[in-house]
Amino acid sequence: MDRHVYFFRQGEADGDASQKNLLGGKGANLAEMCRLNLPVPPGFTIATEVCQAFYDAGGEVPGNVVAEIDAHLSKVESAMDRKLGDPSKPLLLSVRSGAAVSMPGMMDTVLNLGLNDETLDGLAAQTGQRRFALDAYRRLIQMFGDVVMGVDHHRFESALSAVKEKRHALDDTDLDEEGMTEVVAQFREIYRAGTGEDFPQDPRKQLSLAIRAVFKSWNAGRAIKYREIEKITGLIGTAVNVQAMVFGNLGDTSGTGVCFTRNPSTGENVFYGEYLVNAQGEDVVAGIRTPEPIERMERDMPECYRELIEIKDRLEQHYTDVQDLEFTVQEGKLFMLQTRTGKRTAQAAVRLAVEMCDEGLIDEKEALRRVEPKQLDRLLHPTFDPDAPRFKLAQGLPASPGAVSGMIVFTADDAESWATRGHPVILVRRETSPEDIGGMHAAQGILTTLGGMTSHAAVVARGMGKCCVAGCAEARIDAAQGTLSFKSNELNEGDWISLDGATGEVFLDQVPTRAPEVGGHFRRILAIADNHRKLGVRTNADTPHDAQVARDFGAEGIGLCRTEHMFFEESRILAVREMILAETPEARTTALDKLLEPQRDDFLGIFRAMDGLPVTIRLLDPPLHEFLPHEKEAREKLAKTLGVSLETVERRCKDLAEFNPMLGHRGCRLAITYPEIVEMQGRAIVEAAKLAKEEGIDVRPEIMVPLIGTKAELDFCAARLRRIIDEVDAGVPFMIGTMIEVPRAALRAGEIAHSAEFFSFGTNDLTQMTYGYSRDDSGRFLPEYVEKKILPHDPFQTLDRNGVGRLIAMACQEGRATRPEIKLGICGEHGGDPSSIEFCAQTGLDYVSCSPFRVPIARLAAARAAID
Amino acid sequence: MDRHVYFFRQGEADGDASQKNLLGGKGANLAEMCRLNLPVPPGFTIATEVCQAFYDAGGEVPGNVVAEIDAHLSKVESAMDRKLGDPSKPLLLSVRSGAAVSMPGMMDTVLNLGLNDETLDGLAAQTGQRRFALDAYRRLIQMFGDVVMGVDHHRFESALSAVKEKRHALDDTDLDEEGMTEVVAQFREIYRAGTGEDFPQDPRKQLSLAIRAVFKSWNAGRAIKYREIEKITGLIGTAVNVQAMVFGNLGDTSGTGVCFTRNPSTGENVFYGEYLVNAQGEDVVAGIRTPEPIERMERDMPECYRELIEIKDRLEQHYTDVQDLEFTVQEGKLFMLQTRTGKRTAQAAVRLAVEMCDEGLIDEKEALRRVEPKQLDRLLHPTFDPDAPRFKLAQGLPASPGAVSGMIVFTADDAESWATRGHPVILVRRETSPEDIGGMHAAQGILTTLGGMTSHAAVVARGMGKCCVAGCAEARIDAAQGTLSFKSNELNEGDWISLDGATGEVFLDQVPTRAPEVGGHFRRILAIADNHRKLGVRTNADTPHDAQVARDFGAEGIGLCRTEHMFFEESRILAVREMILAETPEARTTALDKLLEPQRDDFLGIFRAMDGLPVTIRLLDPPLHEFLPHEKEAREKLAKTLGVSLETVERRCKDLAEFNPMLGHRGCRLAITYPEIVEMQGRAIVEAAKLAKEEGIDVRPEIMVPLIGTKAELDFCAARLRRIIDEVDAGVPFMIGTMIEVPRAALRAGEIAHSAEFFSFGTNDLTQMTYGYSRDDSGRFLPEYVEKKILPHDPFQTLDRNGVGRLIAMACQEGRATRPEIKLGICGEHGGDPSSIEFCAQTGLDYVSCSPFRVPIARLAAARAAID
Repeated sequence: MDRHVYFFRQGEADGDASQKNLLGGKGANLAEMCRLNLPVPPGFTIATEVCQAFYDAGGEVPGNVVAEIDAHLSKVESAMDRKLGDPSKPLLLSVRSGAAVSMPGMMDTVLNLGLNDETLDGLAAQTGQRRFALDAYRRLIQMFGDVVMGVDHHRFESALSAVKEKRHALDDTDLDEEGMTEVVAQFREIYRAGTGEDFPQDPRKQLSLAIRAVFKSWNAGRAIKYREIEKITGLIGTAVNVQAMVFGNLGDTSGTGVCFTRNPSTGENVFYGEYLVNAQGEDVVAGIRTPEPIERMERDMPECYRELIEIKDRLEQHYTDVQDLEFTVQEGKLFMLQTRTGKRTAQAAVRLAVEMCDEGLIDEKEALRRVEPKQLDRLLHPTFDPDAPRFKLAQGLPASPGAVSGMIVFTADDAESWATRGHPVILVRRETSPEDIGGMHAAQGILTTLGGMTSHAAVVARGMGKCCVAGCAEARIDAAQGTLSFKSNELNEGDWISLDGATGEVFLDQVPTRAPEVGGHFRRILAIADNHRKLGVRTNADTPHDAQVARDFGAEGIGLCRTEHMFFEESRILAVREMILAETPEARTTALDKLLEPQRDDFLGIFRAMDGLPVTIRLLDPPLHEFLPHEKEAREKLAKTLGVSLETVERRCKDLAEFNPMLGHRGCRLAITYPEIVEMQGRAIVEAAKLAKEEGIDVRPEIMVPLIGTKAELDFCAARLRRIIDEVDAGVPFMIGTMIEVPRAALRAGEIAHSAEFFSFGTNDLTQMTYGYSRDDSGRFLPEYVEKKILPHDPFQTLDRNGVGRLIAMACQEGRATRPEIKLGICGEHGGDPSSIEFCAQTGLDYVSCSPFRVPIARLAAARAAID
Repeated sequence: MDRHVYFFRQGEADGDASQKNLLGGKGANLAEMCRLNLPVPPGFTIATEVCQAFYDAGGEVPGNVVAEIDAHLSKVESAMDRKLGDPSKPLLLSVRSGAAVSMPGMMDTVLNLGLNDETLDGLAAQTGQRRFALDAYRRLIQMFGDVVMGVDHHRFESALSAVKEKRHALDDTDLDEEGMTEVVAQFREIYRAGTGEDFPQDPRKQLSLAIRAVFKSWNAGRAIKYREIEKITGLIGTAVNVQAMVFGNLGDTSGTGVCFTRNPSTGENVFYGEYLVNAQGEDVVAGIRTPEPIERMERDMPECYRELIEIKDRLEQHYTDVQDLEFTVQEGKLFMLQTRTGKRTAQAAVRLAVEMCDEGLIDEKEALRRVEPKQLDRLLHPTFDPDAPRFKLAQGLPASPGAVSGMIVFTADDAESWATRGHPVILVRRETSPEDIGGMHAAQGILTTLGGMTSHAAVVARGMGKCCVAGCAEARIDAAQGTLSFKSNELNEGDWISLDGATGEVFLDQVPTRAPEVGGHFRRILAIADNHRKLGVRTNADTPHDAQVARDFGAEGIGLCRTEHMFFEESRILAVREMILAETPEARTTALDKLLEPQRDDFLGIFRAMDGLPVTIRLLDPPLHEFLPHEKEAREKLAKTLGVSLETVERRCKDLAEFNPMLGHRGCRLAITYPEIVEMQGRAIVEAAKLAKEEGIDVRPEIMVPLIGTKAELDFCAARLRRIIDEVDAGVPFMIGTMIEVPRAALRAGEIAHSAEFFSFGTNDLTQMTYGYSRDDSGRFLPEYVEKKILPHDPFQTLDRNGVGRLIAMACQEGRATRPEIKLGICGEHGGDPSSIEFCAQTGLDYVSCSPFRVPIARLAAARAAID
């Protein structure tokens, strides 16, 4: 018999932690905790495959599964010694979603299921608290109405507020039994008005409707959007966890909390969390009441606290990772409701990996697996310059690190639309909810006035790596007026504020940032990475300064030094323009002669910074018109300086304009038409190498010819370069190679390798040409392509393995067949993208080259590729 | 022993006709004629490999070859019973070049070699004609001085003119013995002045210097340029033919001629040629005297004529092709000096192939090999509209067919430079010489005032397929004044004239042309082609008219019907622009609705024209900005018509502008962003098919989605198309397929074939993206690439087999692996290029598609690919 439903109770479970795909993360871990004999309320998990069967059957739970559910329900009833719908000893249930990958708050939950007019009395009698029972009932009606039946939850909330106002109750807890009775009555009315029928009194019907609702929530718009943003694919659906209810709101010996085995924000090895006395779990997560730090629990309920400490230590050891725990204390008894791997900030991820490795909890390889290369990027983000003047508006909770500035907006929709128009925004909300996901994603940072470190805003922002300051109680939002007020200031929509997510501070206006400092844990994880990686990591750098920065980050050479940036410098652009406007080779040579010395100095500086390491210098690449002035005034000035007519300048500019500059007269094509250019650049490189060598520097120049499509182009340039190398005789070994960035070059790599000592894949252009996407123009359709799932991702961010990657793999194989010792690298921006680096490692490249700040990412990604 | 020198005499030869690579065309055929026992003056051929050895040895004939030459010279001496340098019985020699491929007039020749002051007397005594001997001597001094020693030939010519003037001689023949003696004396002076030494009296020295000169002429600039233009590659050098002299200028029983076994201009089976009594061969070829038609020889020397007729019949039978013969009659005895395959016009090539096939001389396959597909193009060239008014200036010889107009230029240099600036030119010369090759190539047509049908101008023009009117004696050129005068008119440089190369007529001004008529031989050769070809031939046609024209030329369907052309029509462009300016899908749909009916009518018309044949319709391809007006006025008008502000129109134009439109928002990318467009077009196609079917037409629509790079794009469009097909239910089988024009599509063809029922390779774009060459911009460097041999040819004209072709081959193989019955075709302009068609046949495509006028070319090229 196929099993579709999995039972669990303390000491016994059908499933285990390895079955996340089948049971969802929550279900698998509940089973695992039961196997560890931890105090878990009994229940059962309906497997994820039933979700698919549910959709296949047109939105019905198949009959055989219904039978299984019934059977397991009986086991829960006997474990709890209560029965669903039993007026005297009613069993209450929670129904929760739980997919293989956590999607916090995205899907539906129904609590207190099993209450009706009869069992209400039973619960009241059993707990001796009628007010509590009424509160549980009104919560069920509201949640069931909202989640299962689609009744607008605002209607319940306004009714509750109205009753509270009438009865001068400030807080829910201020409502007495009579008040609660009135609320229940009103909620039943609202339910009837919203659905056209009475709240269902049959607990079995409640259960089956709730299960359907959970399955349906899998394909709700917000869940789909969340999976899109988080790039979650390949899941078949959500599981459903049906579990006996325990209550944290039965008085001062009850409570509920959320905690982490270590600090998920810094990674420090301290117990970390929050709890609320006399509250249900949703109260902590929703951020409606600001909770207490977990340490306070020791004072309030020392027994339970000690038990919790023991459990959390055991779970961390068992899972060998930080656990994110949910618990409830019901009348002095601790129940574990959830354990899962704790989400963490980038900073914490690094510290946790390094420290757990040092503690012997995990090995080096596992430590590397624990840090996503992309996370390092966040550590390299700037912080506010401590020396810059600033005006602090308020202090909130440091919910997710980062230092950002943006314009105030008050709704998720505004955040999205302002961001689309290019404005950096800070999304300011009392609290966030799953509907705000899109706006949070679009914003630079999030500021909430309610909610704690584990509120929706905080958890989601940390997951996104987005800066967040939560629970900033000093701030007051008047959404209607569009104002945000602090003690001393009133700001309007569109005003600038700055958030420091690491300290929780909120500042007026924009605050200047400065480059990040990289700490010891960061250096340690990279050292571990270097123990394992096989791929070299170089950098793309055009100046001695960038080269030095990259070297400090561990770059093992320069993979791409673009010479055109040097041409743009104020002092040189005139000679460059003179060269472009030259009508004869002689005039061109005269202009080029003026550039020889400055170019030589450029290269000398870079060689000094890269003493002992290889430096790949690319010859001039962009079309010449990029160097000409666009404004009439600048053209007039140029004409005057060069002593030619404005007409001459205009005519030449017009002559040089291109329909598709990307596919035009650039790269080695310039060298073929104007060999003087390659000769000047070649001479500058070779002479600089000679000077460097004379200074005692270990120079390793690699001259790279761009945009090669045929061997003959490379031969043409290489012959000129070799002549200069022979003539200058620098006593330095030179390599001559080529970019592989034109599809034809990849297709002819076997032939080109006869003339090339190295290939460097220019994946930006290779992607442009292989897809036929102009990077400058594709913004008009690429976002839609990704949204409509025509493409899995933007191929300029993550290398397209199947198409572009196939060309690269072919070129590597055929290039190596011709010249086994050929050096193979990549210098497109993909060189800093972890997934692309993984591909490069698999394809057997020798190195990747990326921008200086991505060098650490590349080192880690390369190591991860090597160990997997 | 290796043989390097090959002897021949009537009845005996070391070589034969199969050894063209070794002996050159001339040498191999001289040997063959000797084997056929034809009257050929004895001689020997120095093999082409010696030319290479000559260059390898730094410009020296290797010693062992010199010894062989001496040995063979003795055999010639004994065969002729004369000795080189013998004062009483001197042997005179001709030294001629002769490569494996004919390069008319490109390389050097020296005649009368062996004459010196002593043998001059011997020749005079032997012939009894001292004046003749003197004439022969002065020719030797001039030719040797010019060709071997580099003395400017104009100096000899002016001296000759001066003597003629002084002695009141109109023609060379008017100079008597005394006059010739003076010429010889002056020529020896000129020789000494030009070379610093006396004319060499040692005949052996003359011979060795002449042989060197011939080898050297192989790498003279004009020879290299000729090979470049004619794309002659792979030859190792020229052979040298040393042969006993015979003289056609020994009086009225002597003569010389050039003839073809059939008419090389029309292909008609009549003996065709020209001869001159009392002349040397160079007089005919150089066009200095206008020769007589060959038939006149029957009257002048009937015996020799009969013998010549017998020989020409024998040679044509032997070679089974038209022969181009040179002969000399010396004092009543006929000598054959050359036979070679006759160059022919396109028209003649077709007629000859068909008629020889009908005569049983050759089989069908050979007939197909006899016509170059490119030649058909010329037959499809327009002729002058017979109904158009014209003013005939003069009548010349119909030397090479064509009907062209151009501006008068008088030098080859001007022809090249005017043509570069975009002016069509007619090169007008008294006669042309090898130095004029570049100018002839650049000109639309050539007009000469001297020279016959076999003059340099005529032969070269026919080879080039260039229109030529030769020997137009009524025209007088005054190059100094820059005028061209006819009886009634004086024209200036830059004035327009028109030439009809088929009739020899010269017209004033431009004469309108009209489409060609295609004759019976043309249809016959294509019918033969159809018997052999395996590749289908379709056409690229956007209108019912073009479709009909192509069908008349034998197109078997439409391979590419571009729908955007329909969008540009006056009556529709407004709706198109309205659609583009629409800000919402609804507004766009409203505008598109206006286009539905006209598009449906377009397709209906095409389906009618293509009853029973497949029609591939490509969905909208170009970026939308191509449809917007560029001028402010037009934009204002558009704004007014659409009732929006000019700013709106301007903004939208600006929004749509692209940096690289080639790689921008076009093709299926439009369909993904604006599905309304594909839906309108799909509906128009399907509804048109339904209407056509109701008319009883056999409709076979193939809907083609352009610019596919991923399977998902095709799926997106195909789903919409299938929905419409199902909805309209036309009762017609539809195919849905894709262009393969983005490199990635070729790389993912195996996957895409799951969704595509056919692939059509769009080789224009595929070439652009594979090479990274924008076709609109590559004019700036591609010509130089071809010139500098970076590329063997323009890849937009001839498919790049190694790069682009590799992608095509991969896509075919992998597409077929997924879907064995997939239909594969090509619709880029390469579909009409014979070399590319050959590749398509080899790669196993099902069809090629080309413009209507190239359909016949494709049929023939496909057949040739199939038989070889």
